[in-house]
Order: sequence, then structure tokens, then C-alpha cells
Amino acid sequence: MSDKKIDPIRPADDDARALARGLIAQARFAALAVIDPDTQTPMVTRIALVPGHDGVPLTLISTLSSHTAALDACATCSLLIGEPGPKGDPLTHPRLSLQATAEVADKAGLKAHYLSLYPKAQLYYDFGDFRLFRFSPLGGLLNGGFGKAFRITPDDIVA
Amino acid sequence: MSDKKIDPIRPADDDARALARGLIAQARFAALAVIDPDTQTPMVTRIALVPGHDGVPLTLISTLSSHTAALDACATCSLLIGEPGPKGDPLTHPRLSLQATAEVADKAGLKAHYLSLYPKAQLYYDFGDFRLFRFSPLGGLLNGGFGKAFRITPDDIVA
Repeated sequence: MSDKKIDPIRPADDDARALARGLIAQARFAALAVIDPDTQTPMVTRIALVPGHDGVPLTLISTLSSHTAALDACATCSLLIGEPGPKGDPLTHPRLSLQATAEVADKAGLKAHYLSLYPKAQLYYDFGDFRLFRFSPLGGLLNGGFGKAFRITPDDIVA
Repeated sequence: MSDKKIDPIRPADDDARALARGLIAQARFAALAVIDPDTQTPMVTRIALVPGHDGVPLTLISTLSSHTAALDACATCSLLIGEPGPKGDPLTHPRLSLQATAEVADKAGLKAHYLSLYPKAQLYYDFGDFRLFRFSPLGGLLNGGFGKAFRITPDDIVA
């Protein structure tokens, strides 16, 4: 996009950083885009999400799911975080498109933290086929509504 | 996944087909996953969505957006359709992960149809940088809640 005369996407300022961090802090689910290992094409599914201590999103997903197999084949993925409420225009509701590397996290060590934010996962947290991943950010795009687009760096969101 | 002993994903039955078609019919936005042409990695953003006459989803998006540039480079993409309400467990809310080819659609011919379902787009429908795309389905995965996963074919959703 280097041939574009005006880049409509600005670097993040303090407000944008606070908005991005707030979207992650409040999210309990997200859309996860991976590369389908069978077809090498995108596939997007819904996953649970909680913020880690450092602001990096965490998820608990089953190794039986297609997205986990895809992350094993290619750990680079993308999350859409920030869900519209029941009212208003969904396209003006703030959301964060994050590109990230999915890394296996310390499931036992983070159990209390995860369950404090997502109590229902108590039912299956210890199942052997569930793994905890952290989405180490590579970069992202924050859309705060019409005309409010910001480029997000890892430093903007990791505490 | 051919080495898996039990495939938890079933072929669609009439109820699954009706659910998938209903999710598309009701959706006015979705998550769109594309391949970022700069990095060849997934990127997921939010777009507007309406059902076409034949049940195939349509969107009106700006050529200035990063997802449109990505679709020009690689038209194979994925949509996550079906948004949780404000109550209940988001992971038990039905959703459709659709893999599709984005094709340029007849913007002028579909204007009345699109605006009847998405009146706010009247403000920018005729802007020269906006294009109408249809997402011709390649296949998909319908998740109707815990233990209710169905494989979706194009015939299951196209009228």
C-alpha cells in the first residue's frame, strides 16, 4: 500500500492504546482466523478469550477442534476483538483486528486466573484435550468507528 | 484429519440447513478473514453483510480498506456469521464459519435489494470507491452449540 497518497491509518495515541487494551480486557470471546492446513485458505471461528496478566489474550481450546490443528500447522493467526452491543451501528462499534502468534501457555499455572475471568470453563479446564494458548501480538488495526483507524504495535497493548 | 477415528462433524440435516440459512438471513455484519497480501498471514475484520436473493451473502466495502486489497490479491476468504446476544454463553450460540470466494457483484442492479436490508448504506452506496461483493460458498462448518457441529456444502445454503 506504499503507493497510496494518504494513509488513513494513524499511529496509536494514548486514547487509542487505552481503547485497544480495554477491548481486550473486556472480551470473553473473539473471532479467530487461521490458515486451514488442508486448503491453505482462511478459516474463521469463534473462541473464548480472556486477558492475561500482561494484557495478552489467552484462550482455552480443544485439540479436537479444527482451529487447534490449524494453529499447530501455522501459529500465525488473527483475532477480531470487540463485539457490538444490541443497539447502534455495528460498524461504528470499536474493534481490534490483531495479528498474533499462538503460543502454548502454562495451563496449570494460569488456571486460577483463567477461571476467575471465565468461571464456566471449570467444567472442562482440566480435560486432557484442552490446551491454553496465548496470542503474542505481532501488530494490529484498531477501528474506533468511521475515520478513526489506528495502527497498533505490540508495545501499545502488552503491559 | 483422515487419521481421526471419530469425526465429530456430521453432514447437514434439514434442521442444520435451516439454521445455516437463518443465520445468513439475519446477519447484518460478520467477521471476514482474508490473507494479508503483505505478510501472507490471516487478518480478520468486521464487515457489513446482507443475504442475497439466493441466500448468498453480500457486502458493500470500500476499495480503500485493507480487506478489499486482500480480496483482490486472493479472493478465497472466510466469514463468521451469527452473533451472540447480550445474554447466555457466546460459545453455545449458533454460528456459521463459511469458506467462500469473493466475487464482484452487480452493484447497480442490487442497490434496491441491499438498501432494503441495510438502509444506512444509502449514505455511501453510490460512492465510487465502494464495491459490492458476493461470497460464493465453498463450504463451511456450522456450530449449533456443544456437540452440534455440521459440515455445510454450497447446496445446503444456496437457494
